[in-house]
Amino acid sequence: MTTADEYDVVVVGGGSTGENVADRTAAAGLRTVVVEGGLVGGECSYYACMPSKALLRPGAAAAHARAVAGVSVGAGLDAAAVLARRDSFADHWKDEDQVAWLDGVGIDLVRGHGRLIGERAVQVDGGRVLTARHAVALCTGSLPALPDLPGLAEARPWTSREATSARQVPPRLAVVGGGVVAVEMAAAWRSLGSEVVLLARGPLLGRMEPFAGELVADGLSAAGVEVRQAEVTGVHRDGEVRIDLADGSTVVADEVLFATGRRPNTAELGLESVGLTPGSWPEVDDSCTVTGVPGGWLYAAGDLNHRALLTHQGKYQARIAGAAIAARARGERIDGGRWGAHSATADTAGAPQVVFTEPEAASVGLSLAAAEEAGLRVRAVDHDLGAVAGAKLYADGYTGRARIVVDLDREVLVGATFVGPGVAELLHAATVAVVGEVPVARLWHAVPAYPTVSEIWLRLLEAWRDGE
Amino acid sequence: MTTADEYDVVVVGGGSTGENVADRTAAAGLRTVVVEGGLVGGECSYYACMPSKALLRPGAAAAHARAVAGVSVGAGLDAAAVLARRDSFADHWKDEDQVAWLDGVGIDLVRGHGRLIGERAVQVDGGRVLTARHAVALCTGSLPALPDLPGLAEARPWTSREATSARQVPPRLAVVGGGVVAVEMAAAWRSLGSEVVLLARGPLLGRMEPFAGELVADGLSAAGVEVRQAEVTGVHRDGEVRIDLADGSTVVADEVLFATGRRPNTAELGLESVGLTPGSWPEVDDSCTVTGVPGGWLYAAGDLNHRALLTHQGKYQARIAGAAIAARARGERIDGGRWGAHSATADTAGAPQVVFTEPEAASVGLSLAAAEEAGLRVRAVDHDLGAVAGAKLYADGYTGRARIVVDLDREVLVGATFVGPGVAELLHAATVAVVGEVPVARLWHAVPAYPTVSEIWLRLLEAWRDGE
Repeated sequence: MTTADEYDVVVVGGGSTGENVADRTAAAGLRTVVVEGGLVGGECSYYACMPSKALLRPGAAAAHARAVAGVSVGAGLDAAAVLARRDSFADHWKDEDQVAWLDGVGIDLVRGHGRLIGERAVQVDGGRVLTARHAVALCTGSLPALPDLPGLAEARPWTSREATSARQVPPRLAVVGGGVVAVEMAAAWRSLGSEVVLLARGPLLGRMEPFAGELVADGLSAAGVEVRQAEVTGVHRDGEVRIDLADGSTVVADEVLFATGRRPNTAELGLESVGLTPGSWPEVDDSCTVTGVPGGWLYAAGDLNHRALLTHQGKYQARIAGAAIAARARGERIDGGRWGAHSATADTAGAPQVVFTEPEAASVGLSLAAAEEAGLRVRAVDHDLGAVAGAKLYADGYTGRARIVVDLDREVLVGATFVGPGVAELLHAATVAVVGEVPVARLWHAVPAYPTVSEIWLRLLEAWRDGE
Repeated sequence: MTTADEYDVVVVGGGSTGENVADRTAAAGLRTVVVEGGLVGGECSYYACMPSKALLRPGAAAAHARAVAGVSVGAGLDAAAVLARRDSFADHWKDEDQVAWLDGVGIDLVRGHGRLIGERAVQVDGGRVLTARHAVALCTGSLPALPDLPGLAEARPWTSREATSARQVPPRLAVVGGGVVAVEMAAAWRSLGSEVVLLARGPLLGRMEPFAGELVADGLSAAGVEVRQAEVTGVHRDGEVRIDLADGSTVVADEVLFATGRRPNTAELGLESVGLTPGSWPEVDDSCTVTGVPGGWLYAAGDLNHRALLTHQGKYQARIAGAAIAARARGERIDGGRWGAHSATADTAGAPQVVFTEPEAASVGLSLAAAEEAGLRVRAVDHDLGAVAGAKLYADGYTGRARIVVDLDREVLVGATFVGPGVAELLHAATVAVVGEVPVARLWHAVPAYPTVSEIWLRLLEAWRDGE
């Protein structure tokens, strides 16, 4: 007999990844429930992508317009208007719309903290038990990882959550870190009027091509951010925040953002009940099935499987995991080969990423270093993005750079990087080329419209040809 | 014996197409001369792409910034500054830089009007004769086609040349036509303060998907352009210009632009000396070899072969024709199959076009109507571009639309259209997908970065999937 708490699929975590797993399993006719202890919609909707981009877009729009002679743009931004727009994009931190969507597509929602208590069983807030005939999907994402520093907890540092949801512009903001969150939030709050110092241990955006971090550092500096290479040794708050650095100097600020990495949100997920280690990143195969648990009923998608910590890759994994769950439930074969319908191949071969600073940095696939490390025989081809007519027209003094990484054996692109104002929308062409494994000989027939910034493709192909 | 006037390749016309043919043949070691009676660089550099986009970009940049709450943009544009920027992008109508480029890559330049006088022979200004051992390439482009209307010549109408190079903003401008030049110049001069009326016989941008013309018409109207469906019956100038319409009404303006199509610039090209009809569009094969002339020595590339009247397609044809000339000179086989190195396949299967109005309209490959006319079994999939998170972030009240046309037999895209603010750079992804013939199943792995406007791709794929 079926009780109300017997489901086909139990999804733990109602962020964008969990929602997308549930969407796919529900669409396949599987009775699906989502367990969520916080806001349905997750980090992306309320504390990451949406509010952060809402904070960044006004500065970019103003900068782009200001760079065209004949357009008059006022100095600075109206911070109150920008914050109000941000609030709207974060749905004022209310999840009615997302809950209504779940309801509309026939997915049950159970509010509370979900925890595995054994095979195919999830307990909510220590009480109600939900069982899953076919699959449990863990989609609880990641949390900010803070370093072990004296005084840090008492200093009430910002994490990505506070940095994206703050209701006032701090007069002085210190940002610790050199990754995406660090550079984006430094850019955003600087554009809103904060004095910002960015304290990074090494080069910025270390996983991208080196020129990405360099150009973004230049852009931050030009906007008035103080970019310092520094190691933080201690943090103390006494009204204002004092940050001690390894070189003996001190930075004083009103708020300090620690954007120093992520940790898996799996400490309280009951992983031990199925033989996994709490607080670890569960290992999965390409269909997001957890490999350490027999029976193929446990999935982990999104940040917490540590394949690619990006909202869009989480949603991609969700579509693939959802399809795999549905296929297995129907007794069908899993199409798990390279680029198969049940294989999240793009996580490793073609995941795109955009950093919404000024300039923007956008990349897909492998950097030159990553390709070489993977043992591929590759050549990188670079070109000055500012030399393209479309870029000159876009903004006076346009500065940027592009690189493609070409696999010499297959003559296909395995990676591409664009850095410059407005390059975010240039990236998808590279993603299609990399994922589609379109041969370079065919790319010559993909003519960019003149005079767009995309004509960089022609310049890159010419540089490839003439460098042979 | 070789005289100074014996070349391997004679290129008639030094616009962007002729320059690119010459670049390729010179790079292949063929002694190449370009004959040009006007400015080296051609229409695109001085009277089309470059100045028109320079006139359009400021209005777009201002509109995009104005659409983001918190950014303060002054009303109107500084017309003098915009015109000065335009002058700079048109190199002040001087061709020193282009001449220096020819010189730098070892291509001879003969100034004057070139005319075929028989097989492999071109006469310049009725005197000097240049002979071509391997090939003559005709690259003289197209000219504005004016209708046969009473009073038109005396009314001194603007063509695309005057519309892109005018040194003053006309208080009242009438634009006759509904194609790309008409809508772009209406938008540009309106943004600079002209009162503009657009007189079109039918829907705007008739070769694109119908929604492109509709949304562009809406955008023009919102910017204050009066868009009228009208047939012009007469034009008279008496200080101001009076334009008579078929419905009996009259429009009065300070200038009138006729953007009513193009005609081949072949009337004075000596086509009769090789058995072709002067003033016709020479027919060519996919390698741009003129089919009506035996021996394979005569090529026609760019606008005048009427395959695709677009600067970037002319340059594409030029690369292909240049490579074909070089291959034949070396006695090599021509790779003229579909997507071959010597076949301008993209002219018909994947030519991109961008209209730089507000909203922009961008398309590649076949419209739904064109695909059906070609006898393909296709389905169009549409989505509201304004519903994408990246579009909402880009501009408040973002309005736009996207369509892909999917070949049901091969499950590949044969066309795509995007209309909305800033879509110009979205197009190349579609061009790579169409030209690369990337299967829809693979496109699911080409994940758009969140939250970019490019996420429209995910929405389109979902609409395709759910419509099946």
